[in-house]
Amino acid sequence: MSTKIGIIGDGHVGCTIAHELIISGLVDDLVMIDVNEGKVNADAVDFEDAMANLPYHTNIVVNDYDALKDAEVLISTLGKISLETKGDRFQELEYNKKQLQPITESIKKSGFNGILLVISNPVDAITNLYQQLTGLPKEHVLGTGTLLDTARMKKVVAKKFNVDPRSISGFALGEHGNSQFTAWSTVKVLEQPITELAKSASWSLDDLEDEIRTGGQTVFMGKHYTNYGVSAAAVRIVRAILTDSHTELPVSSYQEKYGTYMSYPTIVGRNGIEAKIKLALTPEEEELLEQSAQAIKEKSQA
Amino acid sequence: MSTKIGIIGDGHVGCTIAHELIISGLVDDLVMIDVNEGKVNADAVDFEDAMANLPYHTNIVVNDYDALKDAEVLISTLGKISLETKGDRFQELEYNKKQLQPITESIKKSGFNGILLVISNPVDAITNLYQQLTGLPKEHVLGTGTLLDTARMKKVVAKKFNVDPRSISGFALGEHGNSQFTAWSTVKVLEQPITELAKSASWSLDDLEDEIRTGGQTVFMGKHYTNYGVSAAAVRIVRAILTDSHTELPVSSYQEKYGTYMSYPTIVGRNGIEAKIKLALTPEEEELLEQSAQAIKEKSQA
Amino acid sequence: MSTKIGIIGDGHVGCTIAHELIISGLVDDLVMIDVNEGKVNADAVDFEDAMANLPYHTNIVVNDYDALKDAEVLISTLGKISLETKGDRFQELEYNKKQLQPITESIKKSGFNGILLVISNPVDAITNLYQQLTGLPKEHVLGTGTLLDTARMKKVVAKKFNVDPRSISGFALGEHGNSQFTAWSTVKVLEQPITELAKSASWSLDDLEDEIRTGGQTVFMGKHYTNYGVSAAAVRIVRAILTDSHTELPVSSYQEKYGTYMSYPTIVGRNGIEAKIKLALTPEEEELLEQSAQAIKEKSQA
Amino acid sequence: MSTKIGIIGDGHVGCTIAHELIISGLVDDLVMIDVNEGKVNADAVDFEDAMANLPYHTNIVVNDYDALKDAEVLISTLGKISLETKGDRFQELEYNKKQLQPITESIKKSGFNGILLVISNPVDAITNLYQQLTGLPKEHVLGTGTLLDTARMKKVVAKKFNVDPRSISGFALGEHGNSQFTAWSTVKVLEQPITELAKSASWSLDDLEDEIRTGGQTVFMGKHYTNYGVSAAAVRIVRAILTDSHTELPVSSYQEKYGTYMSYPTIVGRNGIEAKIKLALTPEEEELLEQSAQAIKEKSQA
Repeated sequence: MSTKIGIIGDGHVGCTIAHELIISGLVDDLVMIDVNEGKVNADAVDFEDAMANLPYHTNIVVNDYDALKDAEVLISTLGKISLETKGDRFQELEYNKKQLQPITESIKKSGFNGILLVISNPVDAITNLYQQLTGLPKEHVLGTGTLLDTARMKKVVAKKFNVDPRSISGFALGEHGNSQFTAWSTVKVLEQPITELAKSASWSLDDLEDEIRTGGQTVFMGKHYTNYGVSAAAVRIVRAILTDSHTELPVSSYQEKYGTYMSYPTIVGRNGIEAKIKLALTPEEEELLEQSAQAIKEKSQA
Repeated sequence: MSTKIGIIGDGHVGCTIAHELIISGLVDDLVMIDVNEGKVNADAVDFEDAMANLPYHTNIVVNDYDALKDAEVLISTLGKISLETKGDRFQELEYNKKQLQPITESIKKSGFNGILLVISNPVDAITNLYQQLTGLPKEHVLGTGTLLDTARMKKVVAKKFNVDPRSISGFALGEHGNSQFTAWSTVKVLEQPITELAKSASWSLDDLEDEIRTGGQTVFMGKHYTNYGVSAAAVRIVRAILTDSHTELPVSSYQEKYGTYMSYPTIVGRNGIEAKIKLALTPEEEELLEQSAQAIKEKSQA
Repeated sequence: MSTKIGIIGDGHVGCTIAHELIISGLVDDLVMIDVNEGKVNADAVDFEDAMANLPYHTNIVVNDYDALKDAEVLISTLGKISLETKGDRFQELEYNKKQLQPITESIKKSGFNGILLVISNPVDAITNLYQQLTGLPKEHVLGTGTLLDTARMKKVVAKKFNVDPRSISGFALGEHGNSQFTAWSTVKVLEQPITELAKSASWSLDDLEDEIRTGGQTVFMGKHYTNYGVSAAAVRIVRAILTDSHTELPVSSYQEKYGTYMSYPTIVGRNGIEAKIKLALTPEEEELLEQSAQAIKEKSQA
Repeated sequence: MSTKIGIIGDGHVGCTIAHELIISGLVDDLVMIDVNEGKVNADAVDFEDAMANLPYHTNIVVNDYDALKDAEVLISTLGKISLETKGDRFQELEYNKKQLQPITESIKKSGFNGILLVISNPVDAITNLYQQLTGLPKEHVLGTGTLLDTARMKKVVAKKFNVDPRSISGFALGEHGNSQFTAWSTVKVLEQPITELAKSASWSLDDLEDEIRTGGQTVFMGKHYTNYGVSAAAVRIVRAILTDSHTELPVSSYQEKYGTYMSYPTIVGRNGIEAKIKLALTPEEEELLEQSAQAIKEKSQA
C-alpha cells in the first residue's frame, strides 16, 4: 500500500516535518491534525499550492482521526514551546499531559495500529504516557530523544576535526533534557577514541560540551524554537521504519532496567524498536544514565 | 563547480526555501543573509544540527556578501509581511525599497554575476528595482511572479476534475497582486479548453476564481504569511536555472512592450530568461494585461 | 504499509527499473523474479552490495511469487529482444505468450491484487493477455505503451525549439509498434500548435517523424536493446499509482470502442486507470487510430 | 556553476553510473566518452528519451574531450572485463594501460583541472598510472578501491546480525583485488568489536570472509560483470566531492609509506583526498597491508 503518515500538532515542528516528508517524496497520504483549525488548514492549502511545482505528489487530509486507521507512522509534535521559560522541557508537561487524554482516545478509536513517534516534550515522559494511554506495544512507541542531541554533538566534533558529521560515531544518552550527557567513551573521530585525542589537545571534552550547549542556545535565543534539527531526526527515524532498515539510532525507548522511556541506542525498523544494544559505558557514564532515569521519573510524577 | 546559492532575507519564505534546497540536495554551498543576526544564525545552526541525520551535505555561510561572488543564483526574500494590512503587496514597497540600496551595493561589490531571483513583494516593482540598482542584464533578473498563482489555479481546476495539478495547462498573468488574472483561454484540463467545459457546467469560471481567492485567504488568515507554495515555485525556477532545462514558466520578466517587469510565460535556463513566448490571448485578456502593467507602473511611482 | 513492488523479468529493462526504483527511494520491498536464477541472484546481490553506500534502504526478495500477495504494483518486463530481427515487436509474441500461462497462474495463486504494469512486447497484445489470464479488472492492468514514444517525440520537438521536453504537450497514440503515430494535432510547443508552426518552417512534420524514428534506431543499433527511456516511463507510471496523483499519461489501456488495449491518454492513479480522456483528433488521426487498433488485433491472432 | 561530470568508458559500469547520477539529479551536464561510438550514442539517446518522464533535467554531451575543461569530476570506467578469465583484475592491466596514453593526452589537452576518480581495474595500478600520466596532484586522483569490498563486508555482517549495513563500521583494506583483506579489528556491530562477538559464536570470521567472497562470485558467475555495487560506491564518492562533505571513506589513495595507490580510510572532499587517517591495526593486519602493497607494485611492473 501507499505510505500514509499522520502528524499531530502543526506548530513549528509539525509543519516542518510535513514539509520535509513532502519534499522528500516520502509520504503519499499525509494526515495533519491540530486544534488550531485555521493554522492547519492554512498549511494544508499552502502545501497544495506547492504541488504543481513539486516533482512528487502528496494527498493531504486535515483533522480526520479516522484516516489514521491504516497509517504506518503517527508523529506527535504537539506542545507549547512558550511555556519553556526556564529552559526545562518539563515546564510543558502539565499542558501537554492534558491534551493527551482526548488525543489518545481518538487514536485508539481510529484503530491506528502502526508505530507512534513522539517529539512532544518532555519527550521521555510524554512517550511514556502515550504508550500507557494508547495501550500500543512498548516496541511500537518511541521518541526522538537524544537523536537530535547526538547530531549536535557530531556537528561540534565534526567542526573541530573538519570532517563530515556523518563520519563521527557516538551518542548522547538519557533524558532529552537537562540530565542528558554525551557518552564520550562511545565517541570516535578519524577512527580514534575522542577521549584519547583529548588527552594531548588544547581543548577539553568540557569545551566541546560547552559548544554543544551554546549551539542549542543560539537556536533557541535566535528564534525561540527549534525545528530543522529535530525534523531531520524525526524523518530519519520515519525512513528507518518505512524501509525496515534496522538502523542503529539513539532514540527514546522503553528501558526495562530503569522502568522508563529514555534514550539509548536501539535498532529501528518496521516494528519500531527491533532490538536493543548494550554499550560498554564507563562506571561514571552508567551513573549519569541512572541519574538521568531518576530525573525523568521524578519530574514525571511531580 | 559545486552549486552555490545565496538567499537574502531569512523570514518565513527565506528559511523555507533554504530548507527545501537542503533537503533536496540541490545546494552544496548556501549563503544566508539577514539583518536579524540572531534569527539567521539560529536557522544556520539548526540546519547544521540536521546534517548528521540528512542524506546530503550542505555547507552554510552566514551574512557574508563576499561569498556571493561565485554564486550561481541569488534569491531575494526580504520583506515585512506585517505591513500588508489591506491585502495589497504594494504596502511593502516603501519599506523594501529602502533596504534595496545598501543590499544592491553589497551585491555589486561582491562581484556577483549570476541569476537574481526576486520573491520580495510587490515582486514586479521590486524586481524592476533590483535590475536597475544592480545593473545586471535584464535577462538575468527575474521574479517568481504568478508562478504561485498559476499553481493555485491548477490546484483548483485539478480538484474540480479530480486530476493531477501537473496535468493542467494554462497561466495566471500580469502583476503578482491585485490586478492579476487567470487567462482562461490558455487553460486546458483533460485535453479540453476549460472555457468549453464551463459552457455546459453547473459552475462558472468566476466560481473557480472565487475558489482560487478563497484558498489564498485561507492561508493568509490561518497563519498571516505564506511560505510553502511560493518556496516550491522558487525552487522550481532555481532547478530550471541550474539544470539549464529551458522550462516554460510564467515568471516576472521584463516586458519591453509594457516597459515593466510582469509575469508572462518564458523559457527559463542557465541564462535566466532564455526566450519569450507569444500567447494567443483574447482581446479581453490583452486588455487585462495592459491594465495590470499600468497598475504596476502607477503604484511603483506612487 | 511500506511500498512493495514486484518485477517479473530481470533482463535489460527489469534490472534497470529495479535500479531506478532503488536509487529513487521509491520501493521499500522489491520482489525480483526471473527464470534465469543466476542472473536474478547476481543482480539482487549486486544491489545489496550497493546498500551501504546508498542513502535509502530496500529489502530484496528473489523468485518468491508468494511475496507478491501484498505488492502494490507488479511490473512485467519479460521478453526476448533477440527475437526482434525484423524490427517488429510482434516477433516476440509467441515466445512471450508461452511464458504467460505459468506466470499468470503463479500471480493468481499469490493472491496479488494490485496494479499490473506491462512492458513486455508486443505490449498491447501482452497487456491484453495478462488481463485475460489473471482476471484482474481491466482498469488494474495497463501497459507503458506509447509513453516512451511520446517522450521521444517531445525530445525531438524540444531540440528543434531549444526548450525543455517537459514543456512540450501532445501524444503518440495507438500501438507501441509499427502502426503508432504522433497525433500532431495534439502537439504544442511555446504555447502554439506545432501544425501552425510547421506551415511557415523550413522543416516538415515528416522530418520530425524521421528524427524520432532515427533516434530509436540509434539506440537499437548501438546496443541492441533499449532500457533507460522505457524505465523512466515505467517509473513515472509507478509513481502516479503509488502517490495516487491522477496524472494524465498516454498508456496502453483497454479501449472499449476498439475492443483492445492500445495507447491513449488516461488518468493514472492508485486504481490504475482512473478515468479516460477524449481527444479532439482530426479525421485522419482517427483513421490512423482505427488502423492501429486493427493491426494490434490482427497480429495478436496471427 | 552547474555541476559537470565526465565519464570515460560506457560499458556496464559507465552507463550505470551515468544512470544513477541522472536519476539522483546530481549532474547538470554529463560528458560521456567511449571509443564505441554506437554504444555511447545509443545510451545518450536513451537517456534523452527518458528526460520527459524524469523529474530533473540533465544535458548530455558525447565524445567531446574539450567539454571536460570545466568538469568538476571525471570518472574512468574503461576496461575489458572479458579479459578477467582467471579472476585476477591484473589480467586487464596491459589492455587498459595501452588506452591510457591517448586518453590522458586528451584529458590534459582539455585543460581538465578537477578530481579524477578511477574505477578501471586493476584499480590501484591504473589510478597510479592516471596520476603519473595526467600530472594532476596526487590528492586530486583517487580510486574506488575497497569501498565496494567494504560495502560487501558490511552486507554480510549486517545480515548475520539483522541490522542495517549502514550501521556497521569497519574497513576492507589494501588492493582492490586478490591481496585485499577485511581489517576485522576495525569492524564493529551493535557497538561491539566483531572480534569479541566471534569468540563465543557458532561462526568464525573466516566464515564471514567466505560469505563475502561467495557474494562476489554469485554476481560474477550470474552476469559476468558487476555494476550496481561499484556504481553506488562511485556515486557516494562523487557526492562527497561535490558537497565537500569531508566524509571518511576507504578509497584508493596515494600511500607515501608504501609508494603506491592503495585503499585506506581517508577524508574525501572538494579537493579529493583532504586528509588521511591512522588506523590502529594489529601487527598481522599491518603485515597484510604491507603484502598487499607489494602485490600491487610487483604486478604493476610485470
